[in-house]
Parts: sequence; structure tokens; C-alpha cells
Amino acid sequence: MTGRLVIVGLGPGAPELTTPLASDALAAATDLVGYAPYLARVPERSGQMRHISENREELARARQALDLAASGKSVAVVSSGDPGVFAMASAVFEVIEEGNPAWRDVEVTVVPGVSAMLAAAARVGAPLGHDFCVISLSDNLKPWELVLQRLEAAAAADFVIVLYNPASMARPWQLGEALARIAHHRAGATPVIFAHAVSQSDEHIDITTLAETESKHADMRTLVIVGSSTTKLIERGGRVFVYTPRHAELVEP
Amino acid sequence: MTGRLVIVGLGPGAPELTTPLASDALAAATDLVGYAPYLARVPERSGQMRHISENREELARARQALDLAASGKSVAVVSSGDPGVFAMASAVFEVIEEGNPAWRDVEVTVVPGVSAMLAAAARVGAPLGHDFCVISLSDNLKPWELVLQRLEAAAAADFVIVLYNPASMARPWQLGEALARIAHHRAGATPVIFAHAVSQSDEHIDITTLAETESKHADMRTLVIVGSSTTKLIERGGRVFVYTPRHAELVEP
Repeated sequence: MTGRLVIVGLGPGAPELTTPLASDALAAATDLVGYAPYLARVPERSGQMRHISENREELARARQALDLAASGKSVAVVSSGDPGVFAMASAVFEVIEEGNPAWRDVEVTVVPGVSAMLAAAARVGAPLGHDFCVISLSDNLKPWELVLQRLEAAAAADFVIVLYNPASMARPWQLGEALARIAHHRAGATPVIFAHAVSQSDEHIDITTLAETESKHADMRTLVIVGSSTTKLIERGGRVFVYTPRHAELVEP
Repeated sequence: MTGRLVIVGLGPGAPELTTPLASDALAAATDLVGYAPYLARVPERSGQMRHISENREELARARQALDLAASGKSVAVVSSGDPGVFAMASAVFEVIEEGNPAWRDVEVTVVPGVSAMLAAAARVGAPLGHDFCVISLSDNLKPWELVLQRLEAAAAADFVIVLYNPASMARPWQLGEALARIAHHRAGATPVIFAHAVSQSDEHIDITTLAETESKHADMRTLVIVGSSTTKLIERGGRVFVYTPRHAELVEP
């Protein structure tokens, strides 16, 4: 008997940002698989098994989930945000492709979620209101030169730039080098957002400028959004909003 | 008395992809403002006013919503997908910036939603599993040369490319030229997804290749995703999945 595997996006943190489709998929599972802090966000149900794994073990977690599904379980793999954006969905498909033939008949579905970048953008206004690029700064799975090449391309063509995985204990210097590279193409006054743990209890959002990012702290739970040349700050009623207008003009490369 | 304005993302179409936060914001509003097909997705509530506007009237719609809020109403502006991605949030902030001083005290919030690109990606697997760019092909508010410059940059640096607003009756040729430009940098076998009306009753998803896009149809409700050099197709149990692995290598520009 072959079971099912659903890869579920929980959204950025707040329960009210988890879609009903995701909640239903979690409730219907016999087994939940995921990183401990994400599983902690799923309501407990009696009879449902939880398989907790460490953060960096994506491929092992994917294999475990597929083994459980191949044995007849109805398995939900949980991701924060959206499972397709630097999260578990790709890891599952990688493992399927290499895969154990027993996994062939597992029915696989992906339930999208509100990604951290969309939630962070909404918190400050509409910085993603025009063309943007999304880049992971982690060089665990790609050469740092490729990250720099993509940053250069995105900065020169005046995209808003979203940086996932900006920093961790093992990768302390990459964010500084990335922002310095972008600063070759952007004014010091360009708005930059450091969004930590959006919609969670320890949410902290810092709206700053490219010239002042050096003093700012980022970690594994931070997302950084760097404005384009048209991104604006507006102050109203004690609040600062950041938005990128819908219109734009050609830039000098 | 000054009211409130909330800009709400309904998600891509299916009610079960609308977050509880969005549903609550819609239920709490005295007035709903939006394009008719989006308002049609919001459950009717007695006593709640609906202000319907045409698709291309974003700024007029934003002004109307701010006037209503300034007069004391609790207004929800509805967007499909996420309101911050080529949708109403930027239009509202543009109008506020120019703005009527009476709008200064209106409390403005944005409720994010599952964007069309995340829903389309989930339907086919995980094509956005690695660095990607998001570009609107509409040249109503930016010069076509800027669109081409950004397509070139994104294609040369091997980003996955998401194309919003690929075509309309008034813009029939832009998608063909955009895909031809990308094809200078990508193999003909590169996976391309045409996702029409994702999660709606007339959803249609076409998984094709860059060499075969000419015969495909796109309109205002279609989203196009072009894979990077690493994006793969895998066939399993009669279904085709598309995913972009988490690892990548440096490319020749």
C-alpha cells in the first residue's frame, strides 16, 4: 500500500497567515516531518506521529518522509513560509529524482504558503511593487562567485533585491560583501529593510538605508530587502512606509 | 472621524488559499473596493458596501478607497494574489504620497496573500527552488527597453524568470520578444510553465519548453515561469514535475 506526501507551507509564523488548505493538509496527515521550530507551530493531534529533524538535514528529512509515505502513511512535510522558495519542496524532488523505486508511486503535492518576503514587504508597505530578484546568500550549495554574479546583474538592471539566508554563525561576512557589491550601483540613501521573524512573537523590522547597513544585525531568521533606484520612504502618522512605484525609467548600466 | 484602510491579498483564487487574516479583514470592513472579478470572490455580508471599478483604474480606485477611509469608513481594497506584487498596494502608497492631506491620518495596513507565482510553482513542483527574478512584461508604466534590459540581466545570470502580465489584447507581441531574448541565453529544452488562472475553476497549466512556446497562448490571467539552466522535468506516475535544484554552478555570461 502506497501513501501520500504533501509538502506544506505554514506561512511566515502567525497562525492567521496559515491558509485553510495548509491547515486541512496538516490535520489529515498521519505523520508530520520537519524541523523542530516549524513542527512546534502545528497544533497537536492525538494519534498523529511527529518526526523531528535538524535544520541542515533537508535531504535526509525528504528521504524519511518518502519512506514513510511509501509504507502507506499520509505524510506532511512542513516548511516555514512557502515550501517552494529556498525550502523543502526542491529537496523532496531532488531525492525523488535520484530515488528509491519504491517512491515512484507516492502521490506528491505541494501546498503553497505566504512566503517570508511577501509578509515582510506587507509589514513595511509595498517594496516589491515593481520588478524584483530573490537570491539566497548561502554558499553552501553554490559558489560565492555565482552569488556575486547574480547580485551584480540584479543591481545593474535596477531590480529590487530580496536576500534570503543573509547570515548565520558559519557565514558571517557574506551579507556585508553582498551589500557592498550592490552599493556600487545604488545610492547610499536607497531604502533597505531588515525583517527578522516576521509575524512571530519576536518580530523586529528595521528600515534603514544602504549607507547604514553595517551596524545592522542579521541572522538565519532575517530577510533583507534592498530597494531599487525608485524605491521610496514615506512618513505618515509616526510610521515609515517603504514602497516601489509601479512606473520606472531606463537606467544607465 | 478617520477610518482605516486595509489592502488585502485574496490569494490566487481558491477560497481555501485565502488566509484567515485576510478573511477577518474582509469581514470587518464597512466598505469593499476593487475590480469586479476579485470582489466576486468575497462572500457577501449584509450592510457592507461594494465599490466596483474597472481593471485599469488603480489610482482612481486607490483615491476612492482613501476618501472613504478619511470619511470614517473601515475600507478593504481587494487584490488577487498578494497585494504587494504588481497589484494594489503600490498604487495606494503612490496616491498617499501625492496626496490629499485629509488622507494623512488614515491607518493603512497590508495583508499579504499567496501570490500567483507561488501557487503556480506549487502546482508543478518547485521551479522557484533557487534564485529567481520576477518581471512584469507590461510596458504601460515603463519603457520596453527597460524590460529587455532586465530580461537580459536575469537570463545572463541564470535566474529562473517569472513573467507577470505576459500578454493582453493591447500587448500581443511582448511575450514573444521576451522569450526570444531569454532564448539567447538558454537551451531550447529549458522548461517553461504557462499557468492560467491557478486554483480557479478554469485553471489550465501547460508545461512546455522554451523551443515550443510560440504555439502557446497567454493572456492577462496567465503567469509564465522560465526555468534556469538547472531546472529539470521529472515524470512520475503519469505526472510531470518541474523543479530547480538547490545547488548551482557558475555560468559563462
